[in-house]
Amino acid sequence: MTNPSTPYLVAPEPSDPRLTERVSGLDHTGQPVELSVVHERPLTIFLNSQEIVTAMTIGDRPDDLAVGYLLNQNMLRRDDVVTGIDIDEDLGVAIVRTERETDYEEKMKKKIRTSGCAVGTVFGDLMETLEGVRLPDTPVRTTWLYALSKAINTTPSLYLEAGAIHGCVLCHRDRPLVYMEDVGRHNAVDKIAGWMFRNDIAADDKIFYTTGRLTSEMVIKTVHMGIPVLVSRSGFTAWGVELARETGLTLIGRMKGKRFVVLAGQDRLIWDADFGQVEDEDARLRRKGAVAAEEA
Amino acid sequence: MTNPSTPYLVAPEPSDPRLTERVSGLDHTGQPVELSVVHERPLTIFLNSQEIVTAMTIGDRPDDLAVGYLLNQNMLRRDDVVTGIDIDEDLGVAIVRTERETDYEEKMKKKIRTSGCAVGTVFGDLMETLEGVRLPDTPVRTTWLYALSKAINTTPSLYLEAGAIHGCVLCHRDRPLVYMEDVGRHNAVDKIAGWMFRNDIAADDKIFYTTGRLTSEMVIKTVHMGIPVLVSRSGFTAWGVELARETGLTLIGRMKGKRFVVLAGQDRLIWDADFGQVEDEDARLRRKGAVAAEEA
Repeated sequence: MTNPSTPYLVAPEPSDPRLTERVSGLDHTGQPVELSVVHERPLTIFLNSQEIVTAMTIGDRPDDLAVGYLLNQNMLRRDDVVTGIDIDEDLGVAIVRTERETDYEEKMKKKIRTSGCAVGTVFGDLMETLEGVRLPDTPVRTTWLYALSKAINTTPSLYLEAGAIHGCVLCHRDRPLVYMEDVGRHNAVDKIAGWMFRNDIAADDKIFYTTGRLTSEMVIKTVHMGIPVLVSRSGFTAWGVELARETGLTLIGRMKGKRFVVLAGQDRLIWDADFGQVEDEDARLRRKGAVAAEEA
Repeated sequence: MTNPSTPYLVAPEPSDPRLTERVSGLDHTGQPVELSVVHERPLTIFLNSQEIVTAMTIGDRPDDLAVGYLLNQNMLRRDDVVTGIDIDEDLGVAIVRTERETDYEEKMKKKIRTSGCAVGTVFGDLMETLEGVRLPDTPVRTTWLYALSKAINTTPSLYLEAGAIHGCVLCHRDRPLVYMEDVGRHNAVDKIAGWMFRNDIAADDKIFYTTGRLTSEMVIKTVHMGIPVLVSRSGFTAWGVELARETGLTLIGRMKGKRFVVLAGQDRLIWDADFGQVEDEDARLRRKGAVAAEEA
């Protein structure tokens, strides 16, 4: 955490030696160079006795990832009682145990047919969960957006340290609360979903920030989590915009320095920023951010 | 195509009205703004009578995508004879028919257990195909890398037009041949794999360029396609580097302007570039490229 006025509940740990590795190569002039690269590790997630999926992850917070994945796949219900989570780091296994007996044999068969290579999710299932959903009309001050963007982009992270990674941040008003990173951007989302469930955190007054694109799947997951505002440095897809408008999700993209574009929920924005006070991203940060984001 | 000296066999079609849509919103000052966003559409791929997967795609070249997906999943073999490909654009269906009878009931069951949310691929299966693979020692001139990078980055594309998309380019020496784009970067790879199979194109003298990160899955797919050189604007993961070193793939990342880093196969590079002659990316392109890449 760089700014004591916005202490994170969970912050990235770029100095954790288990998350990155130094590798040697040559630069464009043929000179030896050494750089940090992030790890990818398989994590196999079980729900009680059933093996569900193997995800490629940087390997931190397997408990949050396992619970969040199962929640976002509708395999764990909001009212389920998790009686235990067993992690075996050496084997790369996470077992989530619930009070309720679970059996997703049929659902797993359906997954065969609907999980897309591009999306990696039980799409038809997730779409069903959106029917009739209408998120609350939570207002958003533009001063919050600028404060969040600046705080997040200056937070020490794997994103700044090694690149090739995605970040997601759960925020309340102008304060970033939980910042998770992963090689798969959906893992970063799932880890936050798992953390929220395990800590019984309300969603309807939160803002969700992602470095990734605002695709249909990112919109679906945010709506499924019950968070009414989604913000990204990156751009939009047509279906992402359409789903946001249907469900009442405020959708803000291309957020960099002073700039952003809002394509859904614009009537909830309170335009209280004084542009004389908003800094453009400084050149060093913009460059760093650009490199890291491109690598993500 | 911008440069008549490097005519593409397949180039992006940013002006195709089916691929993008104009959407309206507000900018950061509250003024109305209109921008282009890419479409996402579901495409359900069948192999003969078996439904295999539904992928989210921009929707161009469903025939190449279907064949390439099946090849990269090891469901279609190199020696298979494709007797027909039926496309129903309205239904979003592609059916690939083969001379050989196929039955992947068992394989689909395995997929349940191994396909990762982060990777969306039958990972264990793909890893098996790498065992004992050693790609040819194809030399790479650094002048080719700079020529390719410049040609690709100045090619009119959805990437420059609308962002939020990934691009992959099949190249021969200093010439980009086939440039495919998609919302899912693995779709872009699969479309090129399908095109190569359908046009009986040799892989061992080619260079593969991607805007995406050099993760384990990107390395595995490139090796599976038999292409000995993989180049990206983006960064590396540790496992991607390890797999490239094991299989003899030349792995070049963070390629922007004069700069790049090579982390595997560096002894095959021929350092023939005269830096007096290599342009840095001009500010306008760098900005555009950065924006587009961040959105991808």
